[in-house]
Amino acid sequence: MPEPDCPFCAIVAGRLPAEILHEDEQVVAFRDIHPRAPVHVLVIPRRHVRSLDAVGGDDRELLGHLLHVAARLARDLGVAERGYRTVLNCNGDGGQTVWHLHLHLLAGRPMGWPPG
Amino acid sequence: MPEPDCPFCAIVAGRLPAEILHEDEQVVAFRDIHPRAPVHVLVIPRRHVRSLDAVGGDDRELLGHLLHVAARLARDLGVAERGYRTVLNCNGDGGQTVWHLHLHLLAGRPMGWPPG
Repeated sequence: MPEPDCPFCAIVAGRLPAEILHEDEQVVAFRDIHPRAPVHVLVIPRRHVRSLDAVGGDDRELLGHLLHVAARLARDLGVAERGYRTVLNCNGDGGQTVWHLHLHLLAGRPMGWPPG
Repeated sequence: MPEPDCPFCAIVAGRLPAEILHEDEQVVAFRDIHPRAPVHVLVIPRRHVRSLDAVGGDDRELLGHLLHVAARLARDLGVAERGYRTVLNCNGDGGQTVWHLHLHLLAGRPMGWPPG
């Protein structure tokens, strides 16, 4: 069920604008409005899932699909060969600020280490 | 097939020591020897896969399993509630340095933004 106050559920429902790069039955991908790299895309499940810690074993295929879509977008955007980073933040220490699971795809510049 | 010069294949085969935290038919998880957070674990497929860009659609379940195992380890290590970050680096700009797909789990401190 969509969460009434969740901005990412609002994007999935088309109630909030976003630059959408990919949609399928399971996920939606759109550009981060606060990009931290030349390419910064979020891939989210359509279904409201609070965080990675709230995902059960039955959702393995969904989690894998998030990564697979990110890898495919990187190819489509022409950044796969140079490289990219995918990041999933869970809860406070992880830096999660929107409580709808989302995978970050960052590319277009060399990413430093440590990752935050 | 294991790659003869791959250090992670050597860990999977038991030819290189590592502090292994989890093993199953598909993946092995062990502590990073250059930790960048109090908890820094790598989760890798047993099978040699060069990078996220080399993974096909058939491997979605495997990719999801990497994330699922990271989430379960975070719970087992007592860091899930405070939070954690998972990172997957692909190719040069992503910061990939070992050419066997590996998911980083970092926790035990607040992770900064941007993620590198």
